Amino acid sequence: MRALRFDGKQAALADCPRPAAAGDRAIVRVHLAGVCNTDLEIVRGYMGFRGVLGHEFVGTVVEGPEPWPGERVVGEINFACGTCPACAAGLGRHCPTRSVMGIEGADGAFAEYVAVPVANLHRVPERVPDEAAVFAEPLAAAFEILEQVEVAEGQQCVVLGDGKLGLLVAQVLATTGARVTQVGRHADKLALAHARGIETREAQGWSPDGVGADVVVDATGSAAGFDQAMRATRPRGTLVLKSTVADHPKVDLAPLVIHEISVVGSRCGPFPPALDALAERTVEVAPMVQEQFALDRADEALRRAAEPGTLKVLVACAD
Amino acid sequence: MRALRFDGKQAALADCPRPAAAGDRAIVRVHLAGVCNTDLEIVRGYMGFRGVLGHEFVGTVVEGPEPWPGERVVGEINFACGTCPACAAGLGRHCPTRSVMGIEGADGAFAEYVAVPVANLHRVPERVPDEAAVFAEPLAAAFEILEQVEVAEGQQCVVLGDGKLGLLVAQVLATTGARVTQVGRHADKLALAHARGIETREAQGWSPDGVGADVVVDATGSAAGFDQAMRATRPRGTLVLKSTVADHPKVDLAPLVIHEISVVGSRCGPFPPALDALAERTVEVAPMVQEQFALDRADEALRRAAEPGTLKVLVACAD
Repeated sequence: MRALRFDGKQAALADCPRPAAAGDRAIVRVHLAGVCNTDLEIVRGYMGFRGVLGHEFVGTVVEGPEPWPGERVVGEINFACGTCPACAAGLGRHCPTRSVMGIEGADGAFAEYVAVPVANLHRVPERVPDEAAVFAEPLAAAFEILEQVEVAEGQQCVVLGDGKLGLLVAQVLATTGARVTQVGRHADKLALAHARGIETREAQGWSPDGVGADVVVDATGSAAGFDQAMRATRPRGTLVLKSTVADHPKVDLAPLVIHEISVVGSRCGPFPPALDALAERTVEVAPMVQEQFALDRADEALRRAAEPGTLKVLVACAD
Repeated sequence: MRALRFDGKQAALADCPRPAAAGDRAIVRVHLAGVCNTDLEIVRGYMGFRGVLGHEFVGTVVEGPEPWPGERVVGEINFACGTCPACAAGLGRHCPTRSVMGIEGADGAFAEYVAVPVANLHRVPERVPDEAAVFAEPLAAAFEILEQVEVAEGQQCVVLGDGKLGLLVAQVLATTGARVTQVGRHADKLALAHARGIETREAQGWSPDGVGADVVVDATGSAAGFDQAMRATRPRGTLVLKSTVADHPKVDLAPLVIHEISVVGSRCGPFPPALDALAERTVEVAPMVQEQFALDRADEALRRAAEPGTLKVLVACAD
């Protein structure tokens, strides 16, 4: 089969063996896969990964244990062992021996077929089109914040950054009834948030009202963003660090102690609320699609996604 | 009156005007005052403070509005304005225009008399001797953790550092029924924790069991301590940063995101649970007193407190 493979030097289309179903592993024929910043980081050397790239996908199970064959699915990307103390504690996404689709130890979804443990699969509701379902993984990462932090109606939330993840995070926070302000540098992206009823502000020179926000999400992936996020958080407030950058900047934690701020690291999240939000359209993802490429041009899709200001780039993998 | 004054260069005994009661301000005749690491940091230049040092005290109100005169008291150190948005939100300890006793804009307690807003005073229960009551301020700082983080029976807690604050923190955490391990470098200090039923471990080469602890408190005040604390925290666990160092090290937050750890900055805390714990003796502070000096030798007390490994040094200020 055709797949976009990273050999440690470059990402190029290759002819790879089609994965085989085995045990609890299903084979999914990939309809669409999305390019994530993490893919771009991997191509720059992050994680030392070698193999087929891609971890945001929607497809149809073509092989595997019942009742999965024929189902249209999305899939969680952390393949946990299921038996270690972390897994026993319900922390499978943190299993120390996990492999991660397209990121560590497991081939990814920029391919005609991808192998996924059935424990990781979720059925896609009929009314969610492929173009929306392919956002399930990054949207789940946005919903992870609500698993970690109590966000209540009327609270003041600020999302710093108007990239792909930032736009999802702001919409997810808004589902709680919190007052959400999206702070970014791109008028066209802020317009997408504004169209969803989210207050928007230009980042340059911005500072928060009053004592600061209850919850601030740093989705900028930059040291300057983290400092601004710290200043924007009220005393005893919460700063969520949501980022997939390879090199985290070293930061000064003095303001954290002085203002008793909680900094919460946040990574992958739960799929069910993400699929619900896509079905109910409480989160809109369609305006975030920038461009779609055929699998044969997947390397080009990656280069396009790497251009500054690009939103979601999709790859159509199999018919 | 006599007082230990810092002039920006050195801390020396000086003859200062006795403070006068005015409005909501009471005058406390200081029985005992404790030396805190923050005092030592100030003498090294922290906060740019000039004035009378000292913020841990117990004394008797000699002047001020009713019903305070004659009461034996301890006092909270953040003098809030009471009217700004932070104060209105119940965050008086974070009032942006606050002064802080012996630290910023207000004279401190290494003196015969100290001025304190009555809103900051707490009566000391009769059965708590001065030598214990003088620990109310640092003990309140330890109790602050329970205001910020849910610590439950059976949870695994680790306290890194066996200094004055670390020893208080471990005892406070143990009051919840959590399983507490104190990790430190000083056999004599760890013995104090052990005598209180707390599990102790030598820091060198220590690493946590299993997936890591639910709650880790870094009371080491060092960059190495923070890194070790991060490694000791389980995925999705909480790391409390409890420290009064002037220069916080710059830290790498990558593990925070990968393991979805929450880092909680923690500073001053509530006095009522601290006074209750001293009255009920659920926390023992007597073994932590290293040495007591007369006010005339307060500069010597500071030098003694600065010697490595020294526990609490007290200054007897007025008869």
